[in-house]
Amino acid sequence: MSVDTQDKHRIIDAVQAPTDLHALDDDELRIVAQELRAQIVESTSRTGGHVASSLGAVDIIVALHAELDCPHDKIVYDVGHQAYAHKLLTGRLADFDTLRQEGGVSGFPNPDESPYDVHYSGHASDALSVALGLAKARDLAGGDERIVALIGDASISGGMAFEALNQIGQIRANMVIVLNDNKMSISPVVGGLARHFGEIRSTNEYREGRDFIKAQMANGGNLSRAALAFGHSAKSSAKHFFLPDTTLVYEQLGITCMAPVDGHDIAALRRVLRTALSVDGPALVHVVTRKGKGYEPAERQPELFHGVGPFNVRTGEVAPRSAGYSGVMGKQLVCEARADERIVAITAAMKEGTGLTAFADEFPERFFDVGICEEHALGLAGGLAKGGAKPVVAIYSTFLQRAIDQLIVNVALPRLDVVLCIDRAGIVGGDGVTHQGAYDLVYTRMVPGLRVLAPSDATELVDALHTALALDGPVAIRYPRGGSDVEPAYEPQLWEPGKARCLREGDDVALLAWGSLVGQALVAAELLAAQGVEARVMDMRWAKPLDEGALCAAADTRLMVTLEEGVLCGGVGEEALAVLARHGLCVPALNLGLPDEPVPHGDPAHILHELGLDAEGIAAAVLARL
Amino acid sequence: MSVDTQDKHRIIDAVQAPTDLHALDDDELRIVAQELRAQIVESTSRTGGHVASSLGAVDIIVALHAELDCPHDKIVYDVGHQAYAHKLLTGRLADFDTLRQEGGVSGFPNPDESPYDVHYSGHASDALSVALGLAKARDLAGGDERIVALIGDASISGGMAFEALNQIGQIRANMVIVLNDNKMSISPVVGGLARHFGEIRSTNEYREGRDFIKAQMANGGNLSRAALAFGHSAKSSAKHFFLPDTTLVYEQLGITCMAPVDGHDIAALRRVLRTALSVDGPALVHVVTRKGKGYEPAERQPELFHGVGPFNVRTGEVAPRSAGYSGVMGKQLVCEARADERIVAITAAMKEGTGLTAFADEFPERFFDVGICEEHALGLAGGLAKGGAKPVVAIYSTFLQRAIDQLIVNVALPRLDVVLCIDRAGIVGGDGVTHQGAYDLVYTRMVPGLRVLAPSDATELVDALHTALALDGPVAIRYPRGGSDVEPAYEPQLWEPGKARCLREGDDVALLAWGSLVGQALVAAELLAAQGVEARVMDMRWAKPLDEGALCAAADTRLMVTLEEGVLCGGVGEEALAVLARHGLCVPALNLGLPDEPVPHGDPAHILHELGLDAEGIAAAVLARL
Repeated sequence: MSVDTQDKHRIIDAVQAPTDLHALDDDELRIVAQELRAQIVESTSRTGGHVASSLGAVDIIVALHAELDCPHDKIVYDVGHQAYAHKLLTGRLADFDTLRQEGGVSGFPNPDESPYDVHYSGHASDALSVALGLAKARDLAGGDERIVALIGDASISGGMAFEALNQIGQIRANMVIVLNDNKMSISPVVGGLARHFGEIRSTNEYREGRDFIKAQMANGGNLSRAALAFGHSAKSSAKHFFLPDTTLVYEQLGITCMAPVDGHDIAALRRVLRTALSVDGPALVHVVTRKGKGYEPAERQPELFHGVGPFNVRTGEVAPRSAGYSGVMGKQLVCEARADERIVAITAAMKEGTGLTAFADEFPERFFDVGICEEHALGLAGGLAKGGAKPVVAIYSTFLQRAIDQLIVNVALPRLDVVLCIDRAGIVGGDGVTHQGAYDLVYTRMVPGLRVLAPSDATELVDALHTALALDGPVAIRYPRGGSDVEPAYEPQLWEPGKARCLREGDDVALLAWGSLVGQALVAAELLAAQGVEARVMDMRWAKPLDEGALCAAADTRLMVTLEEGVLCGGVGEEALAVLARHGLCVPALNLGLPDEPVPHGDPAHILHELGLDAEGIAAAVLARL
Repeated sequence: MSVDTQDKHRIIDAVQAPTDLHALDDDELRIVAQELRAQIVESTSRTGGHVASSLGAVDIIVALHAELDCPHDKIVYDVGHQAYAHKLLTGRLADFDTLRQEGGVSGFPNPDESPYDVHYSGHASDALSVALGLAKARDLAGGDERIVALIGDASISGGMAFEALNQIGQIRANMVIVLNDNKMSISPVVGGLARHFGEIRSTNEYREGRDFIKAQMANGGNLSRAALAFGHSAKSSAKHFFLPDTTLVYEQLGITCMAPVDGHDIAALRRVLRTALSVDGPALVHVVTRKGKGYEPAERQPELFHGVGPFNVRTGEVAPRSAGYSGVMGKQLVCEARADERIVAITAAMKEGTGLTAFADEFPERFFDVGICEEHALGLAGGLAKGGAKPVVAIYSTFLQRAIDQLIVNVALPRLDVVLCIDRAGIVGGDGVTHQGAYDLVYTRMVPGLRVLAPSDATELVDALHTALALDGPVAIRYPRGGSDVEPAYEPQLWEPGKARCLREGDDVALLAWGSLVGQALVAAELLAAQGVEARVMDMRWAKPLDEGALCAAADTRLMVTLEEGVLCGGVGEEALAVLARHGLCVPALNLGLPDEPVPHGDPAHILHELGLDAEGIAAAVLARL
């Protein structure tokens, strides 16, 4: 494909609003799609981003904006990593090279960024609920805006999406669901539903349905009228028209389902969308796409190009990224699993991201990818542990928010041997507000009987995992994105619960740090020493239980400083104060952590600097307070 | 029915273990079921309890224990309020009159109570995940125990259950799902899935299938062999055997589904269970039951007899219960909704429990019961608010744990006008560990931009709701179970955000109380006054934002005491200390609240007493500290 975005004659440069697409014919729209693809590849080759899914959804998005009147009409993007074409068509072309950069275009739809972005996308499976809410609000207010949700086949297998479908089918809200079926999310989609989709795709209907639509629609696309004339209602006629033998599961919930359509055929897409938009009640358009479509390296390696760093456009070569903490966890887990056959591993569609690929390869029977289903992941872990296995559940901090109840009821109440590996804890960078791991230090610590470890570097993570697996009862380990590799040749140490380690002596101030901020604290101590302030640095290791001795010892200094990469409200710094109060101690204290507001995307190091959580900021805050 | 449980010749009195049922024939098992029903009605008429669902499931449970070898085999009860017959057959008959009483038999399956109870039931839709985990752990360990999950038609519409079904269908684990289809949960079941079940039930298959099974099975019930002989696999043959036309949604996920069977016909149940247990891979038994079966008042009013207090066995008359805080909320919401047509209300299958019945009656178009789908409830609220409506979501504290992520992403990040009415916050009483509202003061406060109100009595709740609806952005109101009624003739006041009110002056100690503990603090102050200690009592009203002035003023006393009906770890008392620290203040402090361990069932007042959170305990703690 051409990636010449310097071409001054591009149609997309003339697009002022997405409704400008209304004036274009299908051939011109195909060119628009090509231009969008070229822009996406070129920009993301420099910025990184969600390349494969966004390339796959270009034609759908072009067809949607050609048919809809946004922002009056609403497109609700599920997850939203597929929405780059939408961003480019809705006023963000000129700034697209700032994608995922601080102050630049965010990686997901963001209503603060554009009136065309309906909700904060980022977490899977929520678009249908939001779209149903919009549809009902419209009905109550007597509006006429059209509501479309775009959701992938992996997202639609999430429980929340099913809950929404169930109600959509019941109350028969006027809305359109576009099911973007690309046979994979980040990893290939799992589950009976995926197999069901496969059966639907593989039956004759796909080709027949497509050809049928093409034939019927050749002169203007009034299938809806044809369908209405054919039966007693649009629903039943569309059903029998399109799905003669195999019906989508959703049909049984009361949703009119269209036969699969080629998601890269803009003309066909427009026709089926028009039909769906004319259905009375909810309609589902089953669109079959190819991840990475139009860019061969991404088509060939869609997993690699899911969320990718900068790459060479010509060769598709991606700069190797360190597996970081995730890789260290994965390596150590393989070692542990060789020694203890009870160990099993669970991921929620993040095998690669959480470092479990090697485990899955070596122990396929002991590896469970549940799809984007965090709730089920924790329930499954509870059952496995009750049955005698030792599950390790690796989930990103932000996504574990989905399973807090299951963590309490299915894991903590029965005190089961489950180890939670909470990856991407703290600031994650480019993915922004919906993805920051800001809350896990709060929501894990409130759970009774759950121990929480916060290793401060990769070697410490090896120890933490080894310790967690050796302990009875549930244990969570939280660690940040990135970090350096460690070879697990290192002989892991067992930690005593609730024992911190002192990394630097000092009597003026006590810097008590958890996890990722320990390194900053050490540097801050040097900066303070240069100012004549001697700082003690404690690697607290345990966020629960706390090392009460280390905390009480801080009362002998002039200032206790707590440092955590998580929100302050409900955080471990506040509990540190409560421990002192319980011991009848009072000491001037400074709690440093994430603020009580969403932290946008940007470079993690720079974000920590802006928040005053790097060494410089810590030292400055200490000096200001002294 | 006879409720003579004094009969000395009951079979159930001779049952030492549930496997004793193996020796009984179907006629004897029918008598067992009758005896169990009589016992359930008699005991719950004194203790209260979940009568209707437990009566409906008696025959299923008898049939299960007649076919299974528990505790080697495992029955995983979803929600678990239907499990009284299980409790009576597994060693808890003699103590059953202590049901839901402190130290007595708990209302839900509880592994700490009995080896026959597999997991902490209580929250809907988790049984399939737990059962799948047990099945896979068994396979990995080479065991042979049989795993059965019993789940209702309302629970199976929860997202978590769908997530599990999706994986069960994929990996084809050997396990049996018994779908207890009683056409209602607490309220009639909603959703497209419910309609789908209805279609299945209403088609010929139900009757034909039942008659067919009866005919085939008359001489010993080897349908499994017959089915196996019929086709190339148990799966496909069972499918075509039982479901000639209409198939359950789950069949499409890869689960072998049996045609509906009469859930009160023990012989038929045993036969279909035997067949299902012999299927290679997952099998679903669709059992049609009647809630309250065998006790006419409960059959007639299953909603009333869902979770009921003591009642008159003969007449079915139930002692009227005060609607309490829920009723006050519901009444005031109706008043507010008359004045502001943007207000809509959402419940997750708890219309009655959350006090929304009057609202639903008066504003049916503006009322949404999403079923047991808390995740979707919050996503729907986000969409409705984005579309211009003003949603009020009423959910119990313990169940809102299911939707914390949606609260963050779909409501708080976009700063939408959503009011959360968090009912049953704090100690709930008879329902025990899985139902205590122990965590909401933590998990709401960590959410950026969410304001949290804690009214201290019913009048205050009226003000709090009025204030929440008047504010821009998301607001949560937490209030306990019970409480007295207030007529909304009272003219509601608007509260200034972050402003506490002083209820009693005093300079020795400052009692800062949130919500339900304000009343205890006032009495404690009188107890302290009798000891010469003058206590200030602050009704803090706002758990977020905090009244920093009121907190700082506490530093002028000898002791600051924080009082919250929620876990201390991450709670508002800890934040109070952080506020003082931020202001450079130090004061001896005492944080009182719920402990870092599950609180079992019992009388709420007595539990608070045991935890030192009543007036007496508070006064004693203060005196001990001074």
